[in-house]
Amino acid sequence: MNTNSLLELGRKTKKSSLLLPVLSTNTKKTILKKMAELIIKHKNAIQETNQLDIENAKTKGLSAAMIDRLTLTPERIKGMADSLREVAELPDPVGEIVEEYTRPNGLIVQRRRIPLGVIGVIFESRPNVTVEAASLCFYAGNGLMLRGGSEAFNSNQFLVKILKEALALWKLEDVINIAPTTERSTVDEMARMDEVLSVIIPRGGEGLIRRVKSVATAPVIAHYKGNCHVYVDENADIEKARIIVINGKTQRPGVCNATETLLVHEKIADQFMPLIIKDLQNSNVEIRGCKKSCSYSNEIIPATDEDFDTEFLDLVLSVRIVNDLETAIDHIHKYGSDHTEAIVSENEKAIGKFIQSLDSSAIMVNASTRFNDGGELGLGAEIGISTTKIHSFGPMGLRELTTSKFVVIGDGQIRT
Amino acid sequence: MNTNSLLELGRKTKKSSLLLPVLSTNTKKTILKKMAELIIKHKNAIQETNQLDIENAKTKGLSAAMIDRLTLTPERIKGMADSLREVAELPDPVGEIVEEYTRPNGLIVQRRRIPLGVIGVIFESRPNVTVEAASLCFYAGNGLMLRGGSEAFNSNQFLVKILKEALALWKLEDVINIAPTTERSTVDEMARMDEVLSVIIPRGGEGLIRRVKSVATAPVIAHYKGNCHVYVDENADIEKARIIVINGKTQRPGVCNATETLLVHEKIADQFMPLIIKDLQNSNVEIRGCKKSCSYSNEIIPATDEDFDTEFLDLVLSVRIVNDLETAIDHIHKYGSDHTEAIVSENEKAIGKFIQSLDSSAIMVNASTRFNDGGELGLGAEIGISTTKIHSFGPMGLRELTTSKFVVIGDGQIRT
Repeated sequence: MNTNSLLELGRKTKKSSLLLPVLSTNTKKTILKKMAELIIKHKNAIQETNQLDIENAKTKGLSAAMIDRLTLTPERIKGMADSLREVAELPDPVGEIVEEYTRPNGLIVQRRRIPLGVIGVIFESRPNVTVEAASLCFYAGNGLMLRGGSEAFNSNQFLVKILKEALALWKLEDVINIAPTTERSTVDEMARMDEVLSVIIPRGGEGLIRRVKSVATAPVIAHYKGNCHVYVDENADIEKARIIVINGKTQRPGVCNATETLLVHEKIADQFMPLIIKDLQNSNVEIRGCKKSCSYSNEIIPATDEDFDTEFLDLVLSVRIVNDLETAIDHIHKYGSDHTEAIVSENEKAIGKFIQSLDSSAIMVNASTRFNDGGELGLGAEIGISTTKIHSFGPMGLRELTTSKFVVIGDGQIRT
Repeated sequence: MNTNSLLELGRKTKKSSLLLPVLSTNTKKTILKKMAELIIKHKNAIQETNQLDIENAKTKGLSAAMIDRLTLTPERIKGMADSLREVAELPDPVGEIVEEYTRPNGLIVQRRRIPLGVIGVIFESRPNVTVEAASLCFYAGNGLMLRGGSEAFNSNQFLVKILKEALALWKLEDVINIAPTTERSTVDEMARMDEVLSVIIPRGGEGLIRRVKSVATAPVIAHYKGNCHVYVDENADIEKARIIVINGKTQRPGVCNATETLLVHEKIADQFMPLIIKDLQNSNVEIRGCKKSCSYSNEIIPATDEDFDTEFLDLVLSVRIVNDLETAIDHIHKYGSDHTEAIVSENEKAIGKFIQSLDSSAIMVNASTRFNDGGELGLGAEIGISTTKIHSFGPMGLRELTTSKFVVIGDGQIRT
């Protein structure tokens, strides 16, 4: 599409977003509830519109999994409305005084939380991202520019229309906009709109994220893969280790905080390996192990270097027996993706070293990797799990969609 | 230069930087003091090397101001050593527990401050940036990749050699590296090294910053210009307003937090304008005013739209008389650069609205814009003043060179 028109839409969003920092918390809550109400009111029309996308997808021969992600069932539509109401129950991050102190010259220095401005979200197939992103960005006081995938084009446009219907009651319809076409070039165009976008959050596969990062002039917060490790220390409680590994691998294997690699201290291997192999087999998990691991069972497939580098997102686990904690740490530095690592140990020193040496977004001590999640960590809803260290590392909730400014209160102070 | 070799240097820096999060605070302090000691020890050699750059600059016909920025006098060399010792006195940000709470399932959730990883600093002429950046990045536990300007090539290389001499005593010489050539292409190469760089901080003119942002794949924290405003409200204390305007404009006109535009409420203009015009004239400040302003003196030059958009960095001030607070806010939204804005008022309501409506990195209430500075706001040394909302907005001290990770302490918890 014409670059100017997308940029113009961004400028409109930016201008309108300047009205958001002064909105009261109550007004924002009321608007979110109105959005929820209108989604329920229009639920049949949403399904009818969604049907257009589903039919296009079938014509194009998209996979059943893709079509499932695209589909808005009555439950999913209710889920979108519920999520809007849930966000409205969370504390408003805007205006919070994060820090306050007085300088020797009497100046009172505060850091106050403010919105980021306009957030760009570039996403693939799932149309409910439209509503999720809108609820969090809006409540944190931000304008939102969306660019959805072509498969969900009709659904996304219609959902934005409903959100705007609610916003228009407060003359705020321009704080949320969506690219009016899904030409591939709109991804690049949005990524280069740093004049209006404070940040871009791409949600989708690695290809999309790399594309956005490669062309963006606005800062990008990436949510890459999670190649998550569990290290079972020589001083591990074996029962804890068993349930943590099984939970991390099998509770929901297709998500980024699922466990992908198990590292076992050699001193506990004779005790632990026979038990965990049985547990994994009972859960239908395929094991790809290092040479030493293979000695514990004929059914373990020898692991390649690539296996240790892979986010399986499936009932497959790579296993390596390590000489010591340091080797486990080196392994994670080499293969890890800065997402989530867990240690199972009763030894404070080993735990301390594991925590200090690893720079992943979450370090779990005697707990499942699956807890690296905004809801589980108490952040409320999340827009994703950032593996970018800048700004927000780990789950991004409402607070992570804000920044802070200094407010300095004086009584005529000048610099000398 | 060959892309691979710069990237290889980055990988070496990254690998070595993994050793930094586990260094004790005392070791880091000792290393910084050793760096200071070696700078003093080599002070003559530093000056001799610097002389090469100065002579090259003269041959190339660089301006006197450029040559001044390039020159390392004995005082400036001592200043570099002092700044290393001062950073060593600041509290270590790494390891700080920023937040801690317990979840209903008993998980203890902490956010702990950790280094960012490797920071890329791309800078122009001033060679002391080498030492400033090194002290802050290193103490915050980060590796550092530098790319200095060609004018200061010899000085920068020599300073890095000295820093490495200190680091080598702890086998940490690879945590600081500098691009070995200053071919223009190295700017682009570094900007695209997101594999190893957590963030890039360009320090220099707007051209350099835009260039870096335009090609970077790593996140960029930009320090753009400061078009800073003072708004004198109808309820201002006139004496406070006078000293705040004069201080903001004249105390150091060439810096980013100097005041560039004065906005005066029309109801106080008859009282205030004659006084401030006299004050400004006594300070040799050229006034460029709106039509109404010009009615107060024949010596005011009519302001153009461009004047309101200009960071003069000189004894020049643009002045506009506004109908009300809202017009002042609109003016700042239109012309401001998100840097620093001040209000002079005794009216709480006006102050509240000014604070809430403006999204600049610092809002001053009855204080000079010149206070938007890391030292003045109590952050200790600063690496610059970010006008990027992401990650760090405003002065960036040690804490802003870190991020945080979640540490989750359990007792065998799993997700159900």
